[in-house]
Amino acid sequence: MHVMIIGAAGMIGRKLVDKLAAEPDALAYEIAKLTLVDVIEPPVPAALSAISTLALDLSSEGSAERLVSSRPDVIYHLAAIVSGEAEADFDKGYSVNLDGTRALFEAIRREGQRERYAPRLIFASSIAVFGQPFPEKIGDEFFATPLTSYGTQKAICELLLADYSRRGFFDGIGIRLPTICIRPGKPNKAASGFFSNILREPLAGQEAILPVDENVRHWFASPRSAVGFFIHAARMDTGRIGPRRNLTMPGLSALVGEEVEALKRIAGPKAVGLIRREPDPVIGAIVAGWPTNFDARRARELGFTAESSFDEIIRIHIEDELGGKI
Amino acid sequence: MHVMIIGAAGMIGRKLVDKLAAEPDALAYEIAKLTLVDVIEPPVPAALSAISTLALDLSSEGSAERLVSSRPDVIYHLAAIVSGEAEADFDKGYSVNLDGTRALFEAIRREGQRERYAPRLIFASSIAVFGQPFPEKIGDEFFATPLTSYGTQKAICELLLADYSRRGFFDGIGIRLPTICIRPGKPNKAASGFFSNILREPLAGQEAILPVDENVRHWFASPRSAVGFFIHAARMDTGRIGPRRNLTMPGLSALVGEEVEALKRIAGPKAVGLIRREPDPVIGAIVAGWPTNFDARRARELGFTAESSFDEIIRIHIEDELGGKI
Repeated sequence: MHVMIIGAAGMIGRKLVDKLAAEPDALAYEIAKLTLVDVIEPPVPAALSAISTLALDLSSEGSAERLVSSRPDVIYHLAAIVSGEAEADFDKGYSVNLDGTRALFEAIRREGQRERYAPRLIFASSIAVFGQPFPEKIGDEFFATPLTSYGTQKAICELLLADYSRRGFFDGIGIRLPTICIRPGKPNKAASGFFSNILREPLAGQEAILPVDENVRHWFASPRSAVGFFIHAARMDTGRIGPRRNLTMPGLSALVGEEVEALKRIAGPKAVGLIRREPDPVIGAIVAGWPTNFDARRARELGFTAESSFDEIIRIHIEDELGGKI
Repeated sequence: MHVMIIGAAGMIGRKLVDKLAAEPDALAYEIAKLTLVDVIEPPVPAALSAISTLALDLSSEGSAERLVSSRPDVIYHLAAIVSGEAEADFDKGYSVNLDGTRALFEAIRREGQRERYAPRLIFASSIAVFGQPFPEKIGDEFFATPLTSYGTQKAICELLLADYSRRGFFDGIGIRLPTICIRPGKPNKAASGFFSNILREPLAGQEAILPVDENVRHWFASPRSAVGFFIHAARMDTGRIGPRRNLTMPGLSALVGEEVEALKRIAGPKAVGLIRREPDPVIGAIVAGWPTNFDARRARELGFTAESSFDEIIRIHIEDELGGKI
C-alpha cells in the first residue's frame, strides 16, 4: 500500500508519520511506500524506510498531477493556510485552501479517467465550518454557516469531497477536528493557544497566561485522538458512511475551570499557581464566537473515539511528550 | 439605478423583466438602466427603454469583468446549467455553475478594489442543496448535503456569497426557490414537469400524463411568487438578515391529489378527466428523493411570501397566462 501525507510537516502530520513509523501495520495493510509532502521538506523518523519526501505547494501549477501520478492508495490531505492568515490574505487563503484542494481532487479524477483509480482520500476539515448562533449542542445535521474565509473554504471542500465521492472519483472522508489540546511545542499567538498553554507550561514548570474566565467552555481532543481519527478513517468500511461524508469528530466539551481542576489533581496546586490570570477582552470576544459542544453521534457510531476527561488529556501529554513523568 | 439580470432569457428571468417593464417602480428606485444578459440574446418587452442586451457566457474568459465594469447597482444572477445537464456533464456543470458564479463574484470584488463598489447581488439557489434523508419539515438550520452535482454547485456558491457579503465585497442574498408551478409553456422532459403539466394542459383542454401516485408530496410556489421573491430581495433591508445570507423561500407543501382536487374545483371534473395515469417507476424513484416540506420561518419573517393553496396557484396561472379565463 502506498500512503501519501500532504501537509506532513504540520503538527498532526508529524504525529501521524510517527505513529505509522512506530506501528507499521496501523492501517491494517503493509505500507510499501510512504510519501510525505509539504511546502517545506517534511522531517522523516529514522525508523521509516521506503519513504520519499517532497517539498511542493499543492496550489502551484502541475503539483497535484505530479503527486497523483504515483497513484497512492491512501491520500491524507492535511495541508492548509491557517485561519488567521486566510482571513488576513483573502487571495492566498482561497488559492491554497480551496483551489489547491480542488486541484488535488481534479487530478485524482483525471488519473481515474486514464485508468481505473479511486483512492481513499482523508481530508482535515474543521469545526470552523460552523458559525454563531449555535444550539447548546451542535448536532450532526446542523448547517454550515462559517464566519471566516477559512471556515468557508473548509465547508466548500467538504461539499466537493462529498460530490467526488458520490461520483466514485475517490473514496473520501472529511474529518472535522476539535481544538487539539495539549498542543506540544512553544506557546504561539493563536487565539486558542491558551487552552494548551495553561496546561503544558505549568507541567514543565513554566508560567502561562490565562486571558479568559474559567467558565469559558470549549471542545477538545488530544493529539493522540487526532491521529486516531486519521488512522481509523483510512481503515474503516466507508460503505457504512453513505453519502454524508463529512463527520464532526467526537471530543470533550469542558470548561477552562475543568482544565485547571484536572491540572491540580495531576500536578498539584503549585502547577496551578503558575497560571497567571490576565483577562484579554479581544481574545475573550474571539473565543465567545466559537462552538462549545457537539453531539458527534455519527462519528462515535462509526467507531471514532476521543477522551472523556481532562485528566486523560493531561496524562496523554505526559506519556507522549514528557516521557511519562513530570 | 442600474439593474442587471444575468440569465434574463430563462423562465424566471423573462417574468422578472416583464414585471419591471409593467411596474417600473417595483424596486422602489427608478430604473435608469436595465441590462439583460444570457447565453442567447434575451427578449425585450416593448414597454422598456434604456435597456441593453448582451449575449454572453459568464464562464468564458473576461465575461464577468465586462459585465461588472458598468457597475450595476443590483445584479440578479439567475444563470445556470440545469440539474440533469450538470449531472450528465460534470465539467460543464462545474464550469458554468461554480466557476462562472465565482468569476462574477471575483469581478465585483476587484471592481471594488479599484473604486468603492458593493452592489446588491441576488443569487438563484435551489432546494437541491438538500439531500435525503430529511426531517418531516426541513428547518432553516438543516444542513446542506446535496445528492447531485447541481446541488453541490449551488451550495458552494451559497457559501461564497455569504463570505463575500461578510467581507463587504457585495450585499448578497441567496434565494432557494421551491419547484415553480404552474410553469408556462410546453410540457418538458424534466422529471418534475408533471407537477405543472397535470394542471396547465387540462386548463388548456389538453391531456396530460401523471406518472406518480396522488399521495406524492412536494414543495411549490407560483412563477408570480418567484418574481416576488426576487423583487423583495432587491428592496429589503439586508441589515435584518445578518451573516446567514441564504434563505429557503416560503412555499406550499401539497400532495398531487390536492393539485387534482383544486383543478376539479376550478375547472370541473372534465378537466380532471384529461389527466391520464401512467405510473413511471423511474420518475417515481427520482421524485421520492426530493424534499417535500419546509419550515421557511426566516424568509417569512423577512417578508417573503408565497401561496397557501393550489386554488391560488391555479388562479394565478389563469390570470397571468390565460388572460383571466379558461
